[in-house]
Amino acid sequence: MTNKECQWGGEERGILIVLSGPSGVGKGTVCSALRSMSKDLVYSVSATTRLPREGEIDGVNYFFKTREQFLSMIDNEELLEWAEYVGNYYGTPKAFVEQTLASGKDIILEIEVQGALKVKEKFPEGVFIFLLPPSIDELQNRITNRGTESEETIRKRMTAAVEEISLSEHYDYIIVNDKVEAACNRIRSIMVAEHCKKERYLPKIKKWIEEVL
Amino acid sequence: MTNKECQWGGEERGILIVLSGPSGVGKGTVCSALRSMSKDLVYSVSATTRLPREGEIDGVNYFFKTREQFLSMIDNEELLEWAEYVGNYYGTPKAFVEQTLASGKDIILEIEVQGALKVKEKFPEGVFIFLLPPSIDELQNRITNRGTESEETIRKRMTAAVEEISLSEHYDYIIVNDKVEAACNRIRSIMVAEHCKKERYLPKIKKWIEEVL
Repeated sequence: MTNKECQWGGEERGILIVLSGPSGVGKGTVCSALRSMSKDLVYSVSATTRLPREGEIDGVNYFFKTREQFLSMIDNEELLEWAEYVGNYYGTPKAFVEQTLASGKDIILEIEVQGALKVKEKFPEGVFIFLLPPSIDELQNRITNRGTESEETIRKRMTAAVEEISLSEHYDYIIVNDKVEAACNRIRSIMVAEHCKKERYLPKIKKWIEEVL
Repeated sequence: MTNKECQWGGEERGILIVLSGPSGVGKGTVCSALRSMSKDLVYSVSATTRLPREGEIDGVNYFFKTREQFLSMIDNEELLEWAEYVGNYYGTPKAFVEQTLASGKDIILEIEVQGALKVKEKFPEGVFIFLLPPSIDELQNRITNRGTESEETIRKRMTAAVEEISLSEHYDYIIVNDKVEAACNRIRSIMVAEHCKKERYLPKIKKWIEEVL
């Protein structure tokens, strides 16, 4: 489905897909489905200072780091973004993303809305996709159905979701998550389209024209 | 495959797809295959002063015009582009494109490289796709196989093709026409992706946020 392996070869470098959206929209479900549909798609592995849980493998589930190691990664700008959550650090190692892209593979990063915008600052050439719930009612349902929270909690979550949705203007594409498979197909189409962008071909075309003329 | 019929409704207006590429690349074949794959896709009908051939229907194959009518369309800026070829005028009526887009349908215009760039001047919001041959050898084969032309003619055509390919920098996407079905699938992916562009959703999202907050 891509322009791979042709003389004009626009495919040398992979594409970073950043998938985000408001809390409760189903980013994780879409991302998992996408990975099982697209076997070549690499998943961005986060670094964390949290201890490994049983069965978790270093370099697969997370890159497990000591606090000192993580702080040194921050200082050396080795992270595309990072955040502290319940006493632990989490972040996206730049090197893993860079190595994957250089090998010609696409990589997907599933991340909350604020984190995605931090990634955009350091990696504007990424493709930023914002997942929307099919409707506001549906968003409210998803937020409510998570548990038996108070009305106050639900209202707060709703306000947070609205604030998150307002940040969608900083993304490249907006996908409505009406059905997981349909959302995945749209993302796969975006990936194909991004691989067909003229910028990926012009250097080789220009070189070829210089040789021919 | 699109975000159709959702509350965020980015789908009100169709998209103009302009398909171009060097002479002999197979634009017509790809465009026909695409139309039979995508039944909802409307084909842009050209206006011409040439007389209808047997079986040709006005408004289907062409909009047949008198010379006076055509010149008046030029004067009134009713054409996205026009050209004279072997004593007859040919052009793309703006109204037909506009009406199709307003009805929410996508429309495809198959056109040679120079014509596409004229359309871009008047309709920059169109999606401009440049079709490339899979290789230079293949391009030469296609040019040569058309008939039994002299080497001089073939060389001239090749130079023309190189000049046409150099104009690919003004397009949005580049598609390699290695296999017709694969090329069509890439174009369909581009159409899905273009329908997911954030610009199509932001007005409704902003309106909704103003209502909610």
